[in-house]
Amino acid sequence: MAQIRKDLLVSRWVIVATERARRPAAFVDPVNHQTDIKHCPFCLSDEKPIFTNDRVRVFESGTPFFVDGQPFSRQKHGLYDISSSWGSHEVVLETPEHVANMADLALADIEKVFETYAQRMLLHRKDHSIRYVLAYKNYGVAAGSRPIGHARSQIMAVPVNPIRVKDKIAGAKRYFDFHERCLFCDLIRQERKDSQRVILENREFLALMPFASRFPFEVWIVPKRHCCDFAVGIAGCENQLAQMMKDLLLRFKVGLNDPAYNYMIQSAPFEDGGGYKKYPTIEEDYHWHIELIPRLTRVAGFERGTGFYINPIPPEMTAEFLREIRI
Amino acid sequence: MAQIRKDLLVSRWVIVATERARRPAAFVDPVNHQTDIKHCPFCLSDEKPIFTNDRVRVFESGTPFFVDGQPFSRQKHGLYDISSSWGSHEVVLETPEHVANMADLALADIEKVFETYAQRMLLHRKDHSIRYVLAYKNYGVAAGSRPIGHARSQIMAVPVNPIRVKDKIAGAKRYFDFHERCLFCDLIRQERKDSQRVILENREFLALMPFASRFPFEVWIVPKRHCCDFAVGIAGCENQLAQMMKDLLLRFKVGLNDPAYNYMIQSAPFEDGGGYKKYPTIEEDYHWHIELIPRLTRVAGFERGTGFYINPIPPEMTAEFLREIRI
Repeated sequence: MAQIRKDLLVSRWVIVATERARRPAAFVDPVNHQTDIKHCPFCLSDEKPIFTNDRVRVFESGTPFFVDGQPFSRQKHGLYDISSSWGSHEVVLETPEHVANMADLALADIEKVFETYAQRMLLHRKDHSIRYVLAYKNYGVAAGSRPIGHARSQIMAVPVNPIRVKDKIAGAKRYFDFHERCLFCDLIRQERKDSQRVILENREFLALMPFASRFPFEVWIVPKRHCCDFAVGIAGCENQLAQMMKDLLLRFKVGLNDPAYNYMIQSAPFEDGGGYKKYPTIEEDYHWHIELIPRLTRVAGFERGTGFYINPIPPEMTAEFLREIRI
Repeated sequence: MAQIRKDLLVSRWVIVATERARRPAAFVDPVNHQTDIKHCPFCLSDEKPIFTNDRVRVFESGTPFFVDGQPFSRQKHGLYDISSSWGSHEVVLETPEHVANMADLALADIEKVFETYAQRMLLHRKDHSIRYVLAYKNYGVAAGSRPIGHARSQIMAVPVNPIRVKDKIAGAKRYFDFHERCLFCDLIRQERKDSQRVILENREFLALMPFASRFPFEVWIVPKRHCCDFAVGIAGCENQLAQMMKDLLLRFKVGLNDPAYNYMIQSAPFEDGGGYKKYPTIEEDYHWHIELIPRLTRVAGFERGTGFYINPIPPEMTAEFLREIRI
């Protein structure tokens, strides 16, 4: 038997196995799939960074999907719509040393990585054609990364507002319109009271597994102070976030045998140099957060065909497992 | 450089690599990952099927996510919504022989598989609580299947309308409202004229790679005759669909070294014994089709964070590659 749980934010149903659930230990990768090529292009390169922040360096992507400075155009192609690729695609090299996993970086370096994301976001939003900036990480081949064992993350600045961001904003707005309270602030209160799905808490952040988790061990890191915007809200809290991220990543590494993972900073879109003109209430109804997802299962035909997800283990069980890992 | 292409049906942007595209041969899996366990539970089992159609047999899933006959209930859980799992989950065993890939089945067997989907759909919709039935296939471990080399597919009947189905219906309706023509009928006309993205055509079906393909080698099989409903539209065309599916799957097998793949039958939802009361114009504005997707790449953080997709190769190039495969 299973439960069907509804995501509070977007109207998505998740089928969560309960009675027949797999055990957390079933997700420990028996073979560690992390690979490392012999000659790291980042260690060998003498390319000049476009931005530095202490030991953290930002480069333009060597295989960019967006190229800055190209004229932006939309055009018709028969029935279809096409737009030139426009924006920027940057690689954040998180350490000068050849270390693969952010879990193994010094706290001070991780802190600078988050500070760097914020600084790049604040820069990109000055460009009036940029609608959204996503900072994210692909760690390990199963997470879509190339097999280069050098810790790095990516920043994409894009000229259109992504559909997933729109859906989240719309969901948060629907909740706010009804309750006149922020969904995420309510969620923090509920989860701290319930405590079953909470993994860690520090002064500024709560790490929890969402009630309708799509994937086994899916984690959300939510700031306790309401703010819709990562680049603004993170100021002064970089150290608290670095501490929590390192702790979570070490728990993944020890408890699940160094799995591949992704994280995505989920911040509000912006317009006109950082204002939120298109979304008048976005500042009160959205709340930035981070999704951190280890890549332990494959999405199959049912998920692709319906948009439903099937999660083979309830988040209450995986949260308990992660809480008990000794790092 | 790349192009950003917009999906006609749902408002989704896909970044398609063009100038720096990878070559089709880069997607041929160098190691074939298909596995096969020693003792096939389907060959060994003496379980009685719940339905038979010639050599095709339907069983209740051994690891069901939905259980028929349970009372259906929705309830509140703090802030959240929960519903009991309700519906059915069936396995369609496509052949009595231990053959793994549908590509290697006799045409007559494949024909019966599609006929079976239709018969099960027509049965499930008599149940007034069932809102949607999805027939789909997971082939190979990378497609989310267990490593059992016995050709089979699955049917899920669910009590809520899936979000992806709603999005597609809404997109098709938006197009129809504006043009007073079916999006898919227009798409067939455009693609036949363009011909670049067409792989195969027979009397009843067109196989093409969509303009805004999310994944390398993503194929849509679209019936030439307008019909919103697979279970109704397939009647009399099973043989034509079987022929086209076998041809496509053989091209995958030969050209891409037997890759894992999923297919999903995308049919309109129904209500009240097969009528479309909730969607008054669904019969004219939706058009059933099949998505067939080999699993050659991994979805990474950017896709997860934005709902955008990045396709490393344009569909025009993969369509040409598949057309030229000799089977």
